[in-house]
Amino acid sequence: MILLMKVNVPSRYYLDWAATAIPDVSEHGRAAFGNPSSLHKEGRLAKEALEDSRGRCAKVLGVAPEKLYFTSGGTESNVLVLQSFLLRKGKGKVLYSSVEHPSVRENCLVLQKLGLPVGIIGVEKDGRVSDETLTNTLEKNPGTRFAAVMAVNNETGSLMDIKTLVSIVRLNQSKTGLPVHFHSDLVQAIGKVPVDINLWDLDSASISAHKLGGPRGIGLLYLKKHMETLLTGGKQESGIRPGTENVQGALIMAEQLERRANPETVMKEEEAARLRFKCFIEKLKQIKRCAFIPEDRNEDDPHFSPWILQLRFRDIPGAVMIRALDDLGFAVSTGSACSSASVQRPVLAAMGVAQSASLEGIRISQGWSTETSDFDAVLSGIEKVLSFL
Amino acid sequence: MILLMKVNVPSRYYLDWAATAIPDVSEHGRAAFGNPSSLHKEGRLAKEALEDSRGRCAKVLGVAPEKLYFTSGGTESNVLVLQSFLLRKGKGKVLYSSVEHPSVRENCLVLQKLGLPVGIIGVEKDGRVSDETLTNTLEKNPGTRFAAVMAVNNETGSLMDIKTLVSIVRLNQSKTGLPVHFHSDLVQAIGKVPVDINLWDLDSASISAHKLGGPRGIGLLYLKKHMETLLTGGKQESGIRPGTENVQGALIMAEQLERRANPETVMKEEEAARLRFKCFIEKLKQIKRCAFIPEDRNEDDPHFSPWILQLRFRDIPGAVMIRALDDLGFAVSTGSACSSASVQRPVLAAMGVAQSASLEGIRISQGWSTETSDFDAVLSGIEKVLSFL
Repeated sequence: MILLMKVNVPSRYYLDWAATAIPDVSEHGRAAFGNPSSLHKEGRLAKEALEDSRGRCAKVLGVAPEKLYFTSGGTESNVLVLQSFLLRKGKGKVLYSSVEHPSVRENCLVLQKLGLPVGIIGVEKDGRVSDETLTNTLEKNPGTRFAAVMAVNNETGSLMDIKTLVSIVRLNQSKTGLPVHFHSDLVQAIGKVPVDINLWDLDSASISAHKLGGPRGIGLLYLKKHMETLLTGGKQESGIRPGTENVQGALIMAEQLERRANPETVMKEEEAARLRFKCFIEKLKQIKRCAFIPEDRNEDDPHFSPWILQLRFRDIPGAVMIRALDDLGFAVSTGSACSSASVQRPVLAAMGVAQSASLEGIRISQGWSTETSDFDAVLSGIEKVLSFL
Repeated sequence: MILLMKVNVPSRYYLDWAATAIPDVSEHGRAAFGNPSSLHKEGRLAKEALEDSRGRCAKVLGVAPEKLYFTSGGTESNVLVLQSFLLRKGKGKVLYSSVEHPSVRENCLVLQKLGLPVGIIGVEKDGRVSDETLTNTLEKNPGTRFAAVMAVNNETGSLMDIKTLVSIVRLNQSKTGLPVHFHSDLVQAIGKVPVDINLWDLDSASISAHKLGGPRGIGLLYLKKHMETLLTGGKQESGIRPGTENVQGALIMAEQLERRANPETVMKEEEAARLRFKCFIEKLKQIKRCAFIPEDRNEDDPHFSPWILQLRFRDIPGAVMIRALDDLGFAVSTGSACSSASVQRPVLAAMGVAQSASLEGIRISQGWSTETSDFDAVLSGIEKVLSFL
């Protein structure tokens, strides 16, 4: 039988099941189900769909398509960049900010375990890397070849001034003559706050689809220059990320970036989110037991993303608060979901928050379909919890 | 507004967008869209769906659920096991068969580059590791701590006797007192030929969803014992594979394993595939210019998977043949899609196939919806190509 009648490619006989199977379920991207590495028509169609997706992502992000690589997600994008240092000659020191996501922080510790020199860039009380701290850290670590600073902190919403931080690194490297790779985890920034990879002069950046309303299992890595990664196998994604390409994931990544991350939409959505948060924060300030992390975060502070708020209720452990709110129908969290099982809060500790206070921390993060009335409901929920705790 | 009305969870307010966004597109698994690491109801539902999927996969594979870890695919599963050796004390030698998939072979070369001793287990002319070769290789490499032999070769269909090979390794380790980790890439075996991870006594095994009719971006790693992997970050998948879990992918992996890999279905499908191939091979033998790789592969040989056939047409480069067949509507390939851009054929070279012959090699691989009439059509196509080449 003409197998591909079933996949809308009439008069085709597919006999390359070892490369990839014809999908059983229609949602899995039958239109471009082939293995993009295959040389036949099904493979070429898949390759076209993949490259078309890459081009669409590149257009939204304002970068060249050949500088974008599809990965399995934000964590893998971070790890690919970090672990590539295991292969580099004259490796030099790896610096990372003290508030990085676990996928950066913990993988830097793996590099250290394997013998690479690793150091920390401290943050201020607001969770941000200051110009002075970065300058001093670079001076104290003359062999620095890598620096990782995330754009938006996932626990506090602290917004880093990446453009300025990169320029400090560039100024320093012009003095030392040693190029420094600047990596930024953009997972909580893309689609939420303005991002300009080119203007910021990043060497690499990580993006995840599921934080943008897409599925799990697909992410992007931006690389200004091609590099050898520790991962190898097939030559997919120009040797950066082996394994049969997730074409369907790439298509949805492109759709979601177009839908959520084009500059006009981001500007509009950020403004709306900021207005909702402003009103919410003002009302939270009326609640006596409520405190913010950092303490002085206010409703107009441009140094924070308007999508993430870290706060606490005095004498109520964060875990108790989120359980109580959950029972009332509200889904909020403590810190990073990636470390929610942990009782430690390294990000808050790095900001100088006392452990007792940090364990009271909860995170409220909004999205594009959040409305002011949701916050009013949460406020009632909080009042209710406080009335019996 | 009650946000989760839109995702069929009435009376819920979702304010944990930093953990994961509410998916924009319905197919992306809204039923369990939460981040499984989140402590709220949406997170718990996602965690339940993930663990339910793991249990279903475990049941089909006949292993304990806690020994299965979801990964982004077969390549990552192989890499996780191999790279874990970078963290182990008393690392010992890593052996791999000379016909392994690039994701094993090339990553072993990365280990070598990073200073680990690595060696090769040769194969016979039929592409299989013989008992004698493995015994001798182990004797010559007394410090061996790891051996990787795939169950079914992706280019030739050569079927390894994994159970016997593992028992040879076990016998050897009982003499030396050094435990040896036996890893098998099952990507071309699961759902195609009988597999018994427990009975074979494997230490680890890799599985990919897309070869089973599922999507890209999801795979499984079986680990008899928990190990520290080079990848870290979140504590997801018991620390084996960080990153927000692909719950929707896990659900489809479970569905596809149940649909394709239960022992009864495999036995039935394998028998049907063998009958189709028998008939096809008999007819191919009538074509003078046709030769098989290996030369003596015949229609009844139980040492080959009935899903993959490597053959060649004398004096016609494989790339020319597949292009000609593609023009006539037939999708066939040369070797591994993961190395289709390469002119080298390391797997065929390892079997002792001369380079001239190996460059004529093409691979025809069938699936569960392939019918005998498809092969008749391919035969006509081949005759047609031969008539003008």
